[in-house]
Amino acid sequence: MSKFAKRISNMESSAAVVKRLFGAMNDPEIISFGGGAPAKEALPVDIIREITNDIMRTEKRGIEALQYGPVLGISDLRDVVVNDLLAPKGVNAKSDNIVITSGGMEAINMLCQLYINPGDIILVESPSFVHSIEVFEMFQANCIAVGMDEKGMDTEDLEAKIIKYNPKMIYVIPTFQNPTGITLALERRKKIAELGSKYDVIILEDDPYRDIRYSGSDLLPIKAFDRDGHTILANSFSKIFSAGSRLGYILADDEVVNKLFDIKTATNSHTSMLPQILCAEFFNRGFYSAHHKMICDLYRERRDTMMECIDKYFPEGTKRTTPDGGLFMWVELPKGINTTELLAESVADAKVAYVAGEGFYVERGGKGNNCMRISFGSVAPEKIRIGTERLGKLICSKLG
Amino acid sequence: MSKFAKRISNMESSAAVVKRLFGAMNDPEIISFGGGAPAKEALPVDIIREITNDIMRTEKRGIEALQYGPVLGISDLRDVVVNDLLAPKGVNAKSDNIVITSGGMEAINMLCQLYINPGDIILVESPSFVHSIEVFEMFQANCIAVGMDEKGMDTEDLEAKIIKYNPKMIYVIPTFQNPTGITLALERRKKIAELGSKYDVIILEDDPYRDIRYSGSDLLPIKAFDRDGHTILANSFSKIFSAGSRLGYILADDEVVNKLFDIKTATNSHTSMLPQILCAEFFNRGFYSAHHKMICDLYRERRDTMMECIDKYFPEGTKRTTPDGGLFMWVELPKGINTTELLAESVADAKVAYVAGEGFYVERGGKGNNCMRISFGSVAPEKIRIGTERLGKLICSKLG
Repeated sequence: MSKFAKRISNMESSAAVVKRLFGAMNDPEIISFGGGAPAKEALPVDIIREITNDIMRTEKRGIEALQYGPVLGISDLRDVVVNDLLAPKGVNAKSDNIVITSGGMEAINMLCQLYINPGDIILVESPSFVHSIEVFEMFQANCIAVGMDEKGMDTEDLEAKIIKYNPKMIYVIPTFQNPTGITLALERRKKIAELGSKYDVIILEDDPYRDIRYSGSDLLPIKAFDRDGHTILANSFSKIFSAGSRLGYILADDEVVNKLFDIKTATNSHTSMLPQILCAEFFNRGFYSAHHKMICDLYRERRDTMMECIDKYFPEGTKRTTPDGGLFMWVELPKGINTTELLAESVADAKVAYVAGEGFYVERGGKGNNCMRISFGSVAPEKIRIGTERLGKLICSKLG
Repeated sequence: MSKFAKRISNMESSAAVVKRLFGAMNDPEIISFGGGAPAKEALPVDIIREITNDIMRTEKRGIEALQYGPVLGISDLRDVVVNDLLAPKGVNAKSDNIVITSGGMEAINMLCQLYINPGDIILVESPSFVHSIEVFEMFQANCIAVGMDEKGMDTEDLEAKIIKYNPKMIYVIPTFQNPTGITLALERRKKIAELGSKYDVIILEDDPYRDIRYSGSDLLPIKAFDRDGHTILANSFSKIFSAGSRLGYILADDEVVNKLFDIKTATNSHTSMLPQILCAEFFNRGFYSAHHKMICDLYRERRDTMMECIDKYFPEGTKRTTPDGGLFMWVELPKGINTTELLAESVADAKVAYVAGEGFYVERGGKGNNCMRISFGSVAPEKIRIGTERLGKLICSKLG
């Protein structure tokens, strides 16, 4: 049979990791702290029905929803990004610099199409988001890990690795990071933007969680400190509107947007029209503000419950992060517990799923094998209690 | 500034061709025979409102529409492809072998991700669809033209070029081809499938127009003659349901689908859920049959009007195709008329747009520069009459 392209064997390791370390997401008997899906209570079903019903009554808008549309996205939605999402966070942008994508993952994919040649180096946080690593490997990049602490990516280690490896791109999830929930400190955001310019490296700032902050104060994105276009911001509507709609966006300079026009054309012509229109109307009809407050309250309660339960049920010596937003918490168990090995038993016997930590480390070799990513966003508080108690018991039993 | 990837300079020539030879599509004053959009009358606006209203009333289905979904597409829609679109055309398939994509272009993109290394040869029809060529160039393939006549791709020339160039892939639009409207003869379909197996070449059969046949009889797709998985079928819902929904599909063997799972994950996680559900319900609630008849009647009338008007208004020596379906007709003007040069004048003075022929030839060098692609699908008959009369006058004036 015809051989697959070289890039396919490149992505096999991370794809296999994903398949091995996730899993059991959809079994209704399992309490899953695994997936990164938003809570079902956070999905605006009734609002969407109302908006759809209304826009499809007008012939003009109905046709707009079903006909081919603009490559870079509808102007209404690009304006929403500028006026409702970026401006209130201190980022000045023009809607001509916004590209609507089919979700945040497509933004990563398109920026790899634009920048990555086989063999290019991408610096990533240690740990980093496994699905982005999968995209980078598909584009035959070599990912090198940069250390992080409770303030996010270590900028001294970053600069040293820029000098050592001459990377093409730095990939960073600055806010309520996936998988750790850690937020990059303000002075480091500024520093990373400066390093991008100083060393002529693209900063890919992937910020899909920033709008779900339920404690602490907003921080300016790295993009706000960018003086010459080296930082490109990618974001998603998955957590604040609807994951299944597959809507995201890129903020970049004119020259980059110009090239992304061709890449988007050659990816899927444009993003699906009805979801774009529904999302724009969701903001323009004023639904976002109350919805946003509701989902932040919901996730805050779940985070609080999760922290309380981990502290209560997990063994002594367990460390966990304290996320100020987003959906994830990172748990480091006492040495000797291998979370990859524990997963099958956890799913089969305790009926609890999580994502084993080692898959998030591009270093491989067992790093993070006593860690787990705990997603609390899609689990109701009472199930968080039951699930953590069961999981905690299982872990304690292993310590003997 | 950071350099773009090598593939970006590769795709610049076809991207520039597209921008130069299309254009003026959206000016409401212009009668446009340019774009490939379906007729607005062919978009099921009222049906979609009714279905949306209904499915979003149920909490379960409403959440399904807004939450993350399966990578390869929802099972309802994969079943629709198998039972409603493939089985009636003589193709037996299992829904496990269907991958739902965000439109037909994404199917082409994903199959390039799977198979194409930089420098690989892809054989294409002469002329072929310019946006697919753009994708192939983004993946740094070299496209080589294979001759075609009124029965489609010339299989003798194809075999000679397979032997000469050792291609990775053969790209063919067998039914009501874009840009010519020509349909590949049955015996050639069989032959192409055999050549794929004999020489171990992937046949990418791109068949988005096949379901809009309004005269003549259905022909089996190339895929129906495939014995060992060398032929992969790509299709789209853009012409039979809605272009703006960005829905398409791939039919391929297990091993290929397995790899496409990883590629789709690393492209955009999955295709937007609400459009998938609406499309599946459109079929499952029985709307397709009457809608299909309506759009075929509509396009047949437009084709008939277009043929009559070209014969009436265009100069002696003009040749045109007689498509049995689809949206396009190919017109070859007498030598001496350069359609690329004429386009600006046609748009500015005659207020008529078309796509100049030479952009569809990967050979470049002016081939097809007396040809034009005429899209009649989205223009009402009375405007077809006015537009062809104006365009015909302009062309005749050039012949002196």
